[in-house]
Amino acid sequence: MLNISNRGKLMPPSPIRKLVPYAEEAKKKGIKVYHLNIGQPDIETPKAALDAVRNFDFKVLEYSHSAGNESYRRKLAQYYKKLGMDVDYSHIIITTGGSEAILFGFMSCLDPGDEVIIPEPFYANYNGFAVAAGVVVKPVTSYIETGFALPPIEEFEKAITPKTKAIVICNPNNPTGYLYSPKEMETLKNIIIKHDLYLFSDEAYREFCYSGEHFSAMNLKGAENNVILMDTISKRYSACGGRIGALVTKNKLIYDTVMKFAQARLSPPSFAQILAEAAVDLPDDYFNHTKAEYLKRRNILVDRLNKIPGVFCPRPGGAFYAIAKLPIDDSDKFAQWLLEHFSYEQQTIMVAPATGFYATNGLGKNEVRLAYVLDTNSLHKAMNCLEKALEIYPGKKLA
Amino acid sequence: MLNISNRGKLMPPSPIRKLVPYAEEAKKKGIKVYHLNIGQPDIETPKAALDAVRNFDFKVLEYSHSAGNESYRRKLAQYYKKLGMDVDYSHIIITTGGSEAILFGFMSCLDPGDEVIIPEPFYANYNGFAVAAGVVVKPVTSYIETGFALPPIEEFEKAITPKTKAIVICNPNNPTGYLYSPKEMETLKNIIIKHDLYLFSDEAYREFCYSGEHFSAMNLKGAENNVILMDTISKRYSACGGRIGALVTKNKLIYDTVMKFAQARLSPPSFAQILAEAAVDLPDDYFNHTKAEYLKRRNILVDRLNKIPGVFCPRPGGAFYAIAKLPIDDSDKFAQWLLEHFSYEQQTIMVAPATGFYATNGLGKNEVRLAYVLDTNSLHKAMNCLEKALEIYPGKKLA
Repeated sequence: MLNISNRGKLMPPSPIRKLVPYAEEAKKKGIKVYHLNIGQPDIETPKAALDAVRNFDFKVLEYSHSAGNESYRRKLAQYYKKLGMDVDYSHIIITTGGSEAILFGFMSCLDPGDEVIIPEPFYANYNGFAVAAGVVVKPVTSYIETGFALPPIEEFEKAITPKTKAIVICNPNNPTGYLYSPKEMETLKNIIIKHDLYLFSDEAYREFCYSGEHFSAMNLKGAENNVILMDTISKRYSACGGRIGALVTKNKLIYDTVMKFAQARLSPPSFAQILAEAAVDLPDDYFNHTKAEYLKRRNILVDRLNKIPGVFCPRPGGAFYAIAKLPIDDSDKFAQWLLEHFSYEQQTIMVAPATGFYATNGLGKNEVRLAYVLDTNSLHKAMNCLEKALEIYPGKKLA
Repeated sequence: MLNISNRGKLMPPSPIRKLVPYAEEAKKKGIKVYHLNIGQPDIETPKAALDAVRNFDFKVLEYSHSAGNESYRRKLAQYYKKLGMDVDYSHIIITTGGSEAILFGFMSCLDPGDEVIIPEPFYANYNGFAVAAGVVVKPVTSYIETGFALPPIEEFEKAITPKTKAIVICNPNNPTGYLYSPKEMETLKNIIIKHDLYLFSDEAYREFCYSGEHFSAMNLKGAENNVILMDTISKRYSACGGRIGALVTKNKLIYDTVMKFAQARLSPPSFAQILAEAAVDLPDDYFNHTKAEYLKRRNILVDRLNKIPGVFCPRPGGAFYAIAKLPIDDSDKFAQWLLEHFSYEQQTIMVAPATGFYATNGLGKNEVRLAYVLDTNSLHKAMNCLEKALEIYPGKKLA
């Protein structure tokens, strides 16, 4: 019998995929759907960076270096240095999106059966890369009541077994928006050094911090060999389709190992490397406008949410997501109901049920993730919808 | 102790990587190095396809669909149909290069410990994807004396164990240039059906067939559920840096499983999808010129090689590679010596030792792979170098 692999069976489908047909149906009925479910920013990609691609002058679209163009790696090192991060171009391997950085990191550091600890709720696709690498995810739960702060050190200690090889964080966090404090980063450093663990630090949303400064894992003194930074230009420059990320590490053995995986797939995409290289030259104040825009949206979203009876949403310190606790029975059912049975003034919203972000079964049932990637006007309309929806949702349930 | 993974240790480095520093040294000494070692075509990427990228008009570089833009998938299905291949757009998942198609195919069909049979010599990076997926490669040897024809069916039968799940072919072949005949494809069909195996068919060089018509594995009647096509635009349109490939299968369960891996990495690169979509509209005679050019080069290369005493090179039926048997002790040593100790009129050549393409230890020691990706003038000069080099190489050894 021709069977698919067990790995293929274990591979989780996208948690919102099952909702897509309902969104399509709603649109067919003429209902406008506000997409709060995905992290696709509406912010324009910087024109100067797009123009760099428009103006390329080569005649043969060649493979780039497997680690990415050296000129781009050198530029990217400048970008990190400007932010006070101690990174040399020789620490950088350009990857096909942040996704590939995660996969290469897992593949190079971890073997099948090894365990990684991830504070939950976490970015759902970590599960996919863990399955691809045969790695077991052990969640440590963070809670909405504390704004999804780093769980206490004892929780990590309890989760560590002889098979534990790494901790994965996303800072600022997707899906919670939580920004780790320097003190929390120090706590993590102590754990990884004490237990000889790798720290995979996903800093895709580094530019978007509102409640304080970003503290990069690359700046954890004494943990240079433990830290593997996973980065991407997707959110930074609103360039998700470019598929340009980076794996950064000072651990030479890991670097050389990741390079073998990078060589096997030949090279990262050429066009978007041009864009990414040009983007480093954007004026220093480039992010001010974007950040101000996201901050305004965050405040509208959170303020509106917390005014709805029975809703609680901690104010996220970074990224462009928030998790809200709703007075509902089941976030998967609610998300489907919003698309299938609800509309207000011919409009509805699509949200991501938080169940998809927890590894522990049963958690997230009354939580949804909302991405504030819509302009303030649309965001207000989306909140009007949510308000009305919660008034009439049949599965309403106060905590 | 922070260790790299066993998988990372097993991951093979690029077989020509160790030669790169010698090539760089030679260039520093002012020696011109003819690169016959890599499959980076010098043919220009079609201008119309490059122009399509120059003329993009979006303002946000968004994620594409995880399976690739639907408009491109529909176009690509047209391309296949024009070639007489029975492919619908719903069978296609656009991947990041052919590389990702191989990885997704392995991940979705095979589990760690499963075995795949590959006629050797084979594309060295299959080893890398096998290691990433935990899969064991079992080679079946093809021989230079028969021009690297498909090994006899008994050899496959001998190699099949209860753990065998698939056969991998590359047609026309990299590194041998061998073009499988329709009869050989039928033989393969009988094997995969009899033993319930998947057939991974890498058809990256489909356009470049000189000794007959290409017979795609997609046209094997009755094996629709067994066949997984791995494709790429890299060689077809000289667009290696675009990183656009495709996995094509009529097996719905495999398709759905591959989609889960595709969703985890979000999307293939956007810019080069524009290029690839535009390229499908090139005039029908577009490949005639390129094919004629490669044919001319093939004949120069093979004719010149076979005139050198002690050298044998079968005339390849496709792709742009040839494997030549040389009167040498060790192809790795010879390749290094060419760069380190040899030059003729301030020129030398870089070749790929064939040892890197065999899984069986000891094979390929007197063989090298030559890519005819240089213009005819350079190719003649490169052959002059080889001729002279073999006259004086200290490790000369007649068979």
